[in-house]
Amino acid sequence: MEPPYFAVIFTTVLRGEDPQYEATAQRMLDLAARQPGYLGVDSVRHGQAGVTVSYWRDEASIAAWRAQVEHREAQRQGRERWYARYALRVARVERQRLFDSED
Amino acid sequence: MEPPYFAVIFTTVLRGEDPQYEATAQRMLDLAARQPGYLGVDSVRHGQAGVTVSYWRDEASIAAWRAQVEHREAQRQGRERWYARYALRVARVERQRLFDSED
Repeated sequence: MEPPYFAVIFTTVLRGEDPQYEATAQRMLDLAARQPGYLGVDSVRHGQAGVTVSYWRDEASIAAWRAQVEHREAQRQGRERWYARYALRVARVERQRLFDSED
Repeated sequence: MEPPYFAVIFTTVLRGEDPQYEATAQRMLDLAARQPGYLGVDSVRHGQAGVTVSYWRDEASIAAWRAQVEHREAQRQGRERWYARYALRVARVERQRLFDSED
């Protein structure tokens, strides 16, 4: 993917451990990957802190994913049960540099 | 911080474990926090995968940090010794939503 495109930066702190959270988070990654305009994701969690950055072709793709029914239900559960806090930022990727040690 | 501002999304895969990497990575977080225009950072690593998102007032602040002498040396070592691969994206944060379960 070549800029410009969009990134959704989702930084989270969980309240605690919950196996249902793991399952839902994985399900959302799988669902997102099937949405129109999806370009990819980077997601890392360590203990209760996580950063998930998903990449999208345009703002319309982000809006459609945000409104997806099963995703909306996961958002609701996230606020009610799982997240102590989070920040969700929508950003326009202007440029990028990629490095691969095998190149 | 209120949008618009800038995010540097740095996603990394390490070649392996190296205590010197840990020390340098922490030193870079400390140094970055003292740069003009620095707004904050979210950084999570799990095993060899990491995502570090740093936030900056403007592109000039990012350029100055990129050119900082000790940081340049760390970048060089990163490519030579530590990273199997990485992507570095510069993005303009357009909007954000914050959630805190205690609000």
